[in-house]
This record gives sequence, C-alpha cells and structure tokens, in this order.
Amino acid sequence: MNERGRLFVESVERGFAVLRAFQGRESLSLAELAVEAGITKSAAQRFTHTFEMLGYLRKDAAKRWRLTPRTLEIGTFYLASDPLIERANPHLVDLNHACGESVNLSEPDGTEMVYLARFTANRRSFIHMPIGTRIPMFCAASGRAFLATLPREKALAIIERTAMTAFTARTLTDVNAVMAKVDEARERGFASAVEEFYVGDLNIASAVIGADGTALGAVNISCPTSRWSIEAMEAELAPRLIEAVRSISSGGYLVRQTNNNQWERTGQ
Amino acid sequence: MNERGRLFVESVERGFAVLRAFQGRESLSLAELAVEAGITKSAAQRFTHTFEMLGYLRKDAAKRWRLTPRTLEIGTFYLASDPLIERANPHLVDLNHACGESVNLSEPDGTEMVYLARFTANRRSFIHMPIGTRIPMFCAASGRAFLATLPREKALAIIERTAMTAFTARTLTDVNAVMAKVDEARERGFASAVEEFYVGDLNIASAVIGADGTALGAVNISCPTSRWSIEAMEAELAPRLIEAVRSISSGGYLVRQTNNNQWERTGQ
Repeated sequence: MNERGRLFVESVERGFAVLRAFQGRESLSLAELAVEAGITKSAAQRFTHTFEMLGYLRKDAAKRWRLTPRTLEIGTFYLASDPLIERANPHLVDLNHACGESVNLSEPDGTEMVYLARFTANRRSFIHMPIGTRIPMFCAASGRAFLATLPREKALAIIERTAMTAFTARTLTDVNAVMAKVDEARERGFASAVEEFYVGDLNIASAVIGADGTALGAVNISCPTSRWSIEAMEAELAPRLIEAVRSISSGGYLVRQTNNNQWERTGQ
Repeated sequence: MNERGRLFVESVERGFAVLRAFQGRESLSLAELAVEAGITKSAAQRFTHTFEMLGYLRKDAAKRWRLTPRTLEIGTFYLASDPLIERANPHLVDLNHACGESVNLSEPDGTEMVYLARFTANRRSFIHMPIGTRIPMFCAASGRAFLATLPREKALAIIERTAMTAFTARTLTDVNAVMAKVDEARERGFASAVEEFYVGDLNIASAVIGADGTALGAVNISCPTSRWSIEAMEAELAPRLIEAVRSISSGGYLVRQTNNNQWERTGQ
C-alpha cells in the first residue's frame, strides 16, 4: 500500500510512464524507454508488447519504438465531449476572420493552459502548435486572463507552485511582476503577453465565463511582431476579443468584475 | 496465459477500456462505466481512483466521471513527433489560402484515416471535426487515395474487413463500387467522395508518398455542396491538390503510378 491508497493500480501508472517517455522524442529503443520511464528493461518489454497489441506503439524499420495515431483516440473523445469547444467555434471563426490572425481556445489544467481549438492566420508565419499543447499560465496571456478570474490569493498560489522558466529574454519570472499583469487583466477584462513564450509572438486573451460564474477557459489572439505592436492589438483587437468571449460565455450573460475582484453577471 | 501471450499486461488493457468507455459520452456514473468497460464495479472503482490521481479523470458536481484535458497529452506528443505534419503545414496553409476551403492531412490506421492537421474555410459552414477524428477508408476520399497506392489485393483486403456502414443515403457500401472508386483514384492521381460521410460535404484527396515510395497519408479538400459541385472541384481544385501533395512528398520526388499499379519516382 503506497501513498496513493490501496485502490491505486500501479501498472496503469507505469503504462502511462512508458507512453509519456515519448515527450519530445520521435522514437526510443527499448533500453532508452526503460530509462525514461524509470522501469526495468523486462517491464519495458511487457509494456511495449502490450501497447503494440493494443495499437498504441509500433516498431519502426530500425527496431525503435514509436507512438501511433491511435494515441490520439482518448483525447479526441475529450474534444468531442467538451461542450465549450462546439459553442465557441463559430465565434472563434468570426474573430479569426475579423482579425486575420490566429485565434485559440484553451482550458486550465493545473498550472497550465491546454490549447483545444485553433484557427490560424491565412499566412505561413503562424507557429506550429498542435491541439493539446500546454503553456504555463504565468507567462501566457490566456493563463493570466484565467488567473484574473480567480480570487487573488488562489491565483498567487498557482503562480507560486509553478517552475517559472524563462522561455525567452522577455519572460517575466518575478512573482510580483506576473501578479501585476494578472491585476491589470482583472481591471481591463483582458490580459497581454509580449514575446514571453515565443520570440516574435504577441498575445492578448480574455476569459470565458460559465453558467456558474467561474471561468471555463480563455480565448487568445496571437500576432507576429512583424505585423503588430501590442499597443495596436490592445486598441484594435481587444474590443473584438471581449465581444467574442462574452458571446461564448454561458447563458448570454455579460460579465464584469466588481471592486472586490469577483466577477458578476449583468443583463441577459 | 491468454492469446496475447505471457508478456501482456491485462490491467493496462482494462485501464484503456475505462477511458475508451467515454466515446460519445460527456460523463459516466461508476455503474455505467463498469458496464461500458466490461469490468466489475469494484475494478471500475480502482481504475477511476487511479485515473483521478493521475489527472486523466475528474468527478463533476453530479458525482459523474469526466475525461480531463490531460487525456490529450500522449496524442500531443505524437503530433509533435510526427515529421509529416510539420513538413506538410506550410503547403496545407498555401492550399487552404488558394482554395478558400477546408484542407486536412490524415494518416492511415487500420481500416480508418485519422485526421492530424486541419485548416478550415474562413466561414462558419465548416464541419466540427477535431484532430484525431477517424473516418473509415472505404467511404472517404482520403482513404480511397491511400488505398489506391497499395497493391490492389491489399486494398481489397482492407475494404473486405471493414464494416461498411451507410453514413448517408449516398455512401457506397458495395465492395465492387468502392473498388471502382479506388481504381479511378489510381488512374487520376486523386480520389473523390460525394456526401458519403456527411450530407452536404464533397471531398477530393491525394496521397503523400514517403522516401521509401509508400504512402504516408493523404491530403483532402472538403467543400460544401452549397458552393461547389464535385465536377468543379475536380477541374479547379484537383490540380492544386496534386501540386501540394507532390511538394509534401519526400525528397522532392514526383510520383506517378505505373501500369502494374505500383508507384514510381520521377524527377530530382
């Protein structure tokens, strides 16, 4: 019996460790896989055999293991069952069309935002970012827009348990500096981030509010520094962004923050 | 010891059965989950506890189980590691821009095509089809384009082991009729499908060929019947589609089929 309790199925955890070993790796030998997953080579043999039978792994011509498209299956069930995506899609298309720039929908998970829908600029310059990509909340406009909907101490707690890696020279890694951006987002109704995750990438984002008044996720617009300044995005694109998230937010309610940092429904 | 051999880890299979139970379901009670996954209620309790600890399942306010965005993780590793997607993306953007209609990249898996990249029409009319969506090869233009690159008997074997469901009134469910479409695709270098999976949806597709001469996947263009006829797509869009798949195909080689149904490299 371990800390996870007597109900915990260890072999499921080890199985997922085998699949998660492929993060950032195109293929792995059995020995590499065992090291990455922290299991013995004979355990790795059992799991690779099992995943090959189930269709999640295959051996390539060089006898190295690779993930298969089957690994997308469970996530696809999630995407198909998430009512927010379907509700948001027409508004995301409209926003993408109106701005001519990339528009994304993301949901919170732990200390990160997970990107769930994406409509790219009709240009080659967009960043390749598959559905399911995760970006830490602290340095993403989407994450800051979500954090701004939480009570301030909850937002602070999330930031404090995040490893604040500097992804670019412009990433804010000081807790107070990040909280100042979250506070600014709460006041303005949208958040911004200037080249904090990718060089050359500017973002503004605003939160989608659910029927119970809590945030379900965020919509962000991503623009390249070659075509936009953050000031121009805030002036020209933020009003459209806010209109879109209000249309997506549940029950047709508009939302606005009150003086004590809580969101409030207004009108129908 | 079962038919899967002594190395097979049963609890991994049962764990995935629990996650796969969410196909087409937004949430499941513990009892429903046990029935769907074909396991006892106490086994379902162990697996849901385990997946909750690992972050793949959560209990909602009504005490029903739901998938979380974490279920996208392994699939995202696959998408990020697949060299075809990155190589194809700029060409898919160009094709999408040139056509103004939805453009998709898919890969074969068993008897289905799995959709891996998607650039939608800048209009609300597109069909909501998340990355990871699977469509049977027999009734999809992308599937027929892929089947046309295989030796004819292999293509026939795939079709013969498929449950040929009629998704619309226009789905071809006769083996000979489908094989005639595959033969036509082999001759023309692209395949077509007219409202066979979704009513109102027209498709043409062509296969992407890898460095070893075998097909890696297919690119398809999807148009609504409100704006296009299949004849107009074949005349106006097919040449652009073929140009795009040739640019994506490995090593800059052009490919064309020979008289004995094999593909052949030309040029470079």
